[in-house]
Amino acid sequence: MIVLVNLKAYPCDPVAVAEAAAAVAADTGVRIAVAPQAAHIAAVADVGVETWAQDVSPVEHGSHTGSTLAEAVADAGAVGTLINHSERRRKLADVDGSLRAAERAGLETVVCANNPRQVAAATALEPDAVAVEPPALIGTSRPVSQANPAFVTDSIEAAGAVGDVPVLCGAGISTGEDLAAAGDLGADGVLLASGVAKADDPRAALASLVDPVA
Amino acid sequence: MIVLVNLKAYPCDPVAVAEAAAAVAADTGVRIAVAPQAAHIAAVADVGVETWAQDVSPVEHGSHTGSTLAEAVADAGAVGTLINHSERRRKLADVDGSLRAAERAGLETVVCANNPRQVAAATALEPDAVAVEPPALIGTSRPVSQANPAFVTDSIEAAGAVGDVPVLCGAGISTGEDLAAAGDLGADGVLLASGVAKADDPRAALASLVDPVA
Amino acid sequence: MIVLVNLKAYPCDPVAVAEAAAAVAADTGVRIAVAPQAAHIAAVADVGVETWAQDVSPVEHGSHTGSTLAEAVADAGAVGTLINHSERRRKLADVDGSLRAAERAGLETVVCANNPRQVAAATALEPDAVAVEPPALIGTSRPVSQANPAFVTDSIEAAGAVGDVPVLCGAGISTGEDLAAAGDLGADGVLLASGVAKADDPRAALASLVDPVA
Amino acid sequence: MIVLVNLKAYPCDPVAVAEAAAAVAADTGVRIAVAPQAAHIAAVADVGVETWAQDVSPVEHGSHTGSTLAEAVADAGAVGTLINHSERRRKLADVDGSLRAAERAGLETVVCANNPRQVAAATALEPDAVAVEPPALIGTSRPVSQANPAFVTDSIEAAGAVGDVPVLCGAGISTGEDLAAAGDLGADGVLLASGVAKADDPRAALASLVDPVA
Repeated sequence: MIVLVNLKAYPCDPVAVAEAAAAVAADTGVRIAVAPQAAHIAAVADVGVETWAQDVSPVEHGSHTGSTLAEAVADAGAVGTLINHSERRRKLADVDGSLRAAERAGLETVVCANNPRQVAAATALEPDAVAVEPPALIGTSRPVSQANPAFVTDSIEAAGAVGDVPVLCGAGISTGEDLAAAGDLGADGVLLASGVAKADDPRAALASLVDPVA
Repeated sequence: MIVLVNLKAYPCDPVAVAEAAAAVAADTGVRIAVAPQAAHIAAVADVGVETWAQDVSPVEHGSHTGSTLAEAVADAGAVGTLINHSERRRKLADVDGSLRAAERAGLETVVCANNPRQVAAATALEPDAVAVEPPALIGTSRPVSQANPAFVTDSIEAAGAVGDVPVLCGAGISTGEDLAAAGDLGADGVLLASGVAKADDPRAALASLVDPVA
Repeated sequence: MIVLVNLKAYPCDPVAVAEAAAAVAADTGVRIAVAPQAAHIAAVADVGVETWAQDVSPVEHGSHTGSTLAEAVADAGAVGTLINHSERRRKLADVDGSLRAAERAGLETVVCANNPRQVAAATALEPDAVAVEPPALIGTSRPVSQANPAFVTDSIEAAGAVGDVPVLCGAGISTGEDLAAAGDLGADGVLLASGVAKADDPRAALASLVDPVA
Repeated sequence: MIVLVNLKAYPCDPVAVAEAAAAVAADTGVRIAVAPQAAHIAAVADVGVETWAQDVSPVEHGSHTGSTLAEAVADAGAVGTLINHSERRRKLADVDGSLRAAERAGLETVVCANNPRQVAAATALEPDAVAVEPPALIGTSRPVSQANPAFVTDSIEAAGAVGDVPVLCGAGISTGEDLAAAGDLGADGVLLASGVAKADDPRAALASLVDPVA
């Protein structure tokens, strides 16, 4: 079970969240990764927590001003990257291109998708894992694992019909109960964001969250 | 075998090409469709040829200025639509959305893709057919069916691993020999563009093209 | 004063709205244009009403599948086009490109913008006219000419500082009173959409609307 | 005169270029800034050189996965940002949005444009400076200041007609002679990329470049 904390463009202190994540990961043995803004990757990785990018561009080295080069985020300390998050949807050909860019730079990959059909399509592009988030629940306090369990199990089934990849789920997950429910449905991990990034005490929030699987 | 003639934004007379296509289809019994600019769909459909859109937007009725509403192209006379052509690549979620929009409007669908992996992904989104065009050969006189036959057979195999859809191929196809080679590789149809749209005599070009399958 | 009726992707009958607009224009002498989906331009233009496109692509003739070629919409009967509507925002360089494409095809142009600063930028690109629509009021029943008159006068002033172009305004306009207020503020025309397109009786809605300027 | 070195996604060592730039700036008193990948901003700023972002997103704090938040690049050490580079063109409304985001974060701004008309439009959006780069010369060894001097003077004139901002120029600039020619035309600075980033000895390349204005 991997817990991936996406800091988006939240007004949180990325280093403080990273320290909280590192401490809880060390305390519990649960795999926890933090995905900050690209400009914060170096500072977050310095804390010693597993660090991910939120996106990489489908480009190689070259004349690509304003891109997010996979090699650059890896160089700054990232070991994985989200691709095609619902807030950063990419063209079908560019999901493929970003996956190949990430592989080239040695980054682990999670491709996000919005429904079981898109999960199957994402699986066909051969990422390391896929993640499904129903758009209607993102940013809410209604956890997908409890509000729409069929969405998760249908996605796992859709991915399984095409390939053999771990399936994460996300949207509305903030408590240990939500996490346990996701695991019960067969998910291999969860995407989290506001539940931790906006918590008054991120360490306590994370500790409580991972408690059922620790 | 379907022959889909994409007029792109070429400076051809869409009605003249449509009349040529209608005549050759009637003469030979080969299924030939013409995909003009959206603004030309009504004029092309009036000729009596099978008419397709080049793209539809992933939207429903509503406040979508500048969109290509599936219902509007159907209303003008289109019976099918390309989606995700390499010159009109769409986001993964929008390929899904455009497919659902086309289904809603009763349009047949062909989703384009650039390589076997993307063909598999496109197939997972449940179109009526997929088409593979290697970007390097589009607009050339090097037919994919002869320049890169493995690209076609790999794509057919990749699609077959995910679903049961017809597979078209395109890029560089302009002669009957190219078409026959595509059929021999297992393709269920071809995408054509400049070979017909830019021909001095579109009817002769099409008649020669479909001769091997007529 | 021009009244530009944008049909967006609404589920209205474009020909019925066109006939209503043609009748009211003939009755009152007010300039009324209708902007349907590209696929409906030919049918709308056949009615004899002034017909506009909702958008054109910044391309010339060539390999541009799924584009909206300026020459194609002109060929189908359009005499003008919106560019950069807030539902179809274009890159700065592409607003320029679409303007040049429209000029090439002999189309009159209105570039839309969201605030006075963007109106000034749009004016610098040398369109035939600019239009300002505050995003917060689009699709509401709160007319910009009454809900935010300073927005209109500031936009007219911003345009005037850069060039000498007519300025239209839009958002929430549906009654003759709204139209008169726009004229009193110095606007040279209005953009309308749902107020006419969704009216039970488009002819009555338009007649009532233009009454103060007829 | 400012010399802005854009590292794009080049396979250079950003810290080595930064050290070269810092040394030459100290030696000569010429203002030199380096714009690396966002993930490299912290490492480049640590060197003590003036550091810029290549782009910022038109967003505020919030749910914007994969964005480049102005506050995050400022936090990592950037003091300015390019916006709308020809390799990262933004929508007209988003150039405005990115400018406002940069201002909010205290970043100096340079908006890029492709021709004099677009320079005027960019100026209307009230950046700290504008830059003009003819697309045909980017990445070549034909310096804009010598290959197309009218392009530069027309751009300066176009900007001056709308506002009072410094105008930089770029494309093909790599020698001191090119830089001097740019200054003679009235440019307030230059954008550089491959000429320094790909140089075997970036320090020697920069020293030679700024020699005429040192």
